[in-house]
Amino acid sequence: MNRPESRRVNASTDTHEASAAGHARAATGAASATPTAIERWALAQLLGLAGNPPVRFVLWNGAEVPGSGAAPVAHLHIRNRRTLWQLVSNPDLRFGDAYTRGDLEVEGDLVDCLQAMYRAFPAVSEQNRLYRGLQRWRNRAGLNTLAGSLSNIHRHYDTGNDFFRLWLDEQMVYTCAYFPSTTLSLEQAQQRKMDYVCRKLRLQPGESVIEAGCGWGALARHMARHYGVQVRAYNISHEQILHARERAAAEGLAAQVEYIEDDYRNIRGQCDAFVSVGMLEHVGRNNYPTLGAVIDRCLAPHGRGLLHSIGRNQPCPMNAWIERRIFPGSYPPTLREMMAVLEPSGFSVLDVENLRLHYARTLEHWLARFEAHSDELSARYDAAFTRAWRLYLAGSLAAFATGWLQLFQVVFTRSGDNAIPWSRAQLYAQEP
Amino acid sequence: MNRPESRRVNASTDTHEASAAGHARAATGAASATPTAIERWALAQLLGLAGNPPVRFVLWNGAEVPGSGAAPVAHLHIRNRRTLWQLVSNPDLRFGDAYTRGDLEVEGDLVDCLQAMYRAFPAVSEQNRLYRGLQRWRNRAGLNTLAGSLSNIHRHYDTGNDFFRLWLDEQMVYTCAYFPSTTLSLEQAQQRKMDYVCRKLRLQPGESVIEAGCGWGALARHMARHYGVQVRAYNISHEQILHARERAAAEGLAAQVEYIEDDYRNIRGQCDAFVSVGMLEHVGRNNYPTLGAVIDRCLAPHGRGLLHSIGRNQPCPMNAWIERRIFPGSYPPTLREMMAVLEPSGFSVLDVENLRLHYARTLEHWLARFEAHSDELSARYDAAFTRAWRLYLAGSLAAFATGWLQLFQVVFTRSGDNAIPWSRAQLYAQEP
Repeated sequence: MNRPESRRVNASTDTHEASAAGHARAATGAASATPTAIERWALAQLLGLAGNPPVRFVLWNGAEVPGSGAAPVAHLHIRNRRTLWQLVSNPDLRFGDAYTRGDLEVEGDLVDCLQAMYRAFPAVSEQNRLYRGLQRWRNRAGLNTLAGSLSNIHRHYDTGNDFFRLWLDEQMVYTCAYFPSTTLSLEQAQQRKMDYVCRKLRLQPGESVIEAGCGWGALARHMARHYGVQVRAYNISHEQILHARERAAAEGLAAQVEYIEDDYRNIRGQCDAFVSVGMLEHVGRNNYPTLGAVIDRCLAPHGRGLLHSIGRNQPCPMNAWIERRIFPGSYPPTLREMMAVLEPSGFSVLDVENLRLHYARTLEHWLARFEAHSDELSARYDAAFTRAWRLYLAGSLAAFATGWLQLFQVVFTRSGDNAIPWSRAQLYAQEP
Repeated sequence: MNRPESRRVNASTDTHEASAAGHARAATGAASATPTAIERWALAQLLGLAGNPPVRFVLWNGAEVPGSGAAPVAHLHIRNRRTLWQLVSNPDLRFGDAYTRGDLEVEGDLVDCLQAMYRAFPAVSEQNRLYRGLQRWRNRAGLNTLAGSLSNIHRHYDTGNDFFRLWLDEQMVYTCAYFPSTTLSLEQAQQRKMDYVCRKLRLQPGESVIEAGCGWGALARHMARHYGVQVRAYNISHEQILHARERAAAEGLAAQVEYIEDDYRNIRGQCDAFVSVGMLEHVGRNNYPTLGAVIDRCLAPHGRGLLHSIGRNQPCPMNAWIERRIFPGSYPPTLREMMAVLEPSGFSVLDVENLRLHYARTLEHWLARFEAHSDELSARYDAAFTRAWRLYLAGSLAAFATGWLQLFQVVFTRSGDNAIPWSRAQLYAQEP
């Protein structure tokens, strides 16, 4: 895949940004000390546990600790002793923290570096068990209670609409787009995704739809405008709901779309279609049967449902840094785990599609727009914030591109409903 | 759906057949006794546990015990006391046994009757727990060890090729066909299914394929003939393997297709595509990780896999009568349970399609051909055998048509393989 060159970050740029963040490395008192043999050994052990990726650590005195024998994809500069020991003791969390502070700098293409690291990393089932157990215990996630969900969602989505507007599409769709042709623009691909979801749901004019987790409301407006349905769309992010309402009013859709600031657990009423795009990641495994019971309560006898979620091939906690700093309470389920939503209520799965590569492409667009606005970002946000979001976008791109993350779209109906299409051919015959 | 009228069985026909089977009802010493109040009460309880289907029991003295208030879809004649108590004590197993003997007769359309019973039956999660627990314990299935599998498969598939030839298509494909148009003939729909499977696997000329559970070998020959691949196809049914080899030789495909009489657990070697159509039902849940490890051992880095299996929306044992008398050791998994094959090895699920209605249609064709050959069946097999197979085909049709059974086709690759199609549109663009 082609990525913009602007994201190629070199060590000197990083150093500049880190300085701007106001972190005085000398304060650690270690910048000038010589790394000990134990420190070099510990770092080599860390590389070994990480599958010896083709990267090279460069320590504060210029000493190098290499990964696998191949030519390194990137040099990772560790600026001080404290960062080294943080990395060794809790790499899942501290890699991102150190990068955010500027105490870890990547010389080389950030996405290439992260892809190489993901590719080298052992599969979940082959990882050192003691090490993974320790990491999981240390980074265990909090529960998604009603209050916990509100706090978690507030931290991420209420960051400010202006920030997201800098790098999302014009409709502010913050989920995987659909690229039936890889040359589509981000705007086109998000339109195609919304349309694809509507076709999978077989929406008919006059039907009612419940959307759980509606983001800035683009899908709800799309369904109302293009498919003539009535939508009730739920979200617990205050800023998103306000934006969604304003936009629906401005577009003359207020009578067709109701945005409700409430938790999915409080959804009431009946619907012909239940759709949730990019919410399940925040629901938490313990609550899957609860979500299933909500759908069971709402869906009409001939209703259709669609769940769209980031997923995994094997169960694995969300990266600790993303879970703590970016997306509190998030967990991407395996397809087996997703079935805990649908199986207890006896829903019938008709169709599952994995759109992993489409999310990698979507993230390429987001990251390119993010980098294209680097001047604005620098002017409006501190360097640590910008670095954290750059790492998050680049890391997500790498995770989808290397198969560490999946994107599952699951279509279901009630058991025994025979008003289902004979074939999926129609889905593609209708493609614009 | 339209079904042939020939399958409408009335009580007198049934009585005739049952007599021909040589069962002397008077021998039970109960045929002339008056049913007791307890017997009528027990039967009413049974109907209640079964969700009060719109059928009516007619006892040996003409007394009736009705199900739900609606006009009955069928009258179920219970010919003697022994059969009544067998039904009450273990309906899952004894309904089929009594029907086979002719001690239970269905007055009315057999498929309509069974569909009405399936529709009324409570969902697994809503069934009386004590009753289901008792049924499960009583009808617990045996293990699919190597020897057990051989015995189980021998009992079903070595019944005699001549028997299956009477009602399968010309290629003897004994799995769900694919009807992109509902007016296709069975022969056409089986060809379409085989082609669809090949397209989902993205077979290229010169590639190698391993097929686990190849039946009479039609898919292996189709892949070799139309896609230019080398196939090694495994099966433990001796009669099927002999037939498959003969046919491949006659069609000049012996150099491209090797039929191997062995268990899937003994599969060796590498392949570009791994396919299993209609075997997983016989593998047993305990062995799913073993099957997954076999696939993991065999599949090339860019290999594709397809599992095609009868399934369920909720976990539920196979009907005891089918499991004991027709398909020993069989179990249709839920999609969640199927993932126990793929998740431990970290395979990436790309696509799941539920072809339930296609199996209902396939069974309509099979049952119609079965009935069209009733004279030959009567001449060559005893009445009990024919009645058992009629019930099995009609019951399977009813189960797929009412959503008690599903048909899952699951396509997967290794994790992180990016040589996957961007869209499924091509699958349908290539449709003949």
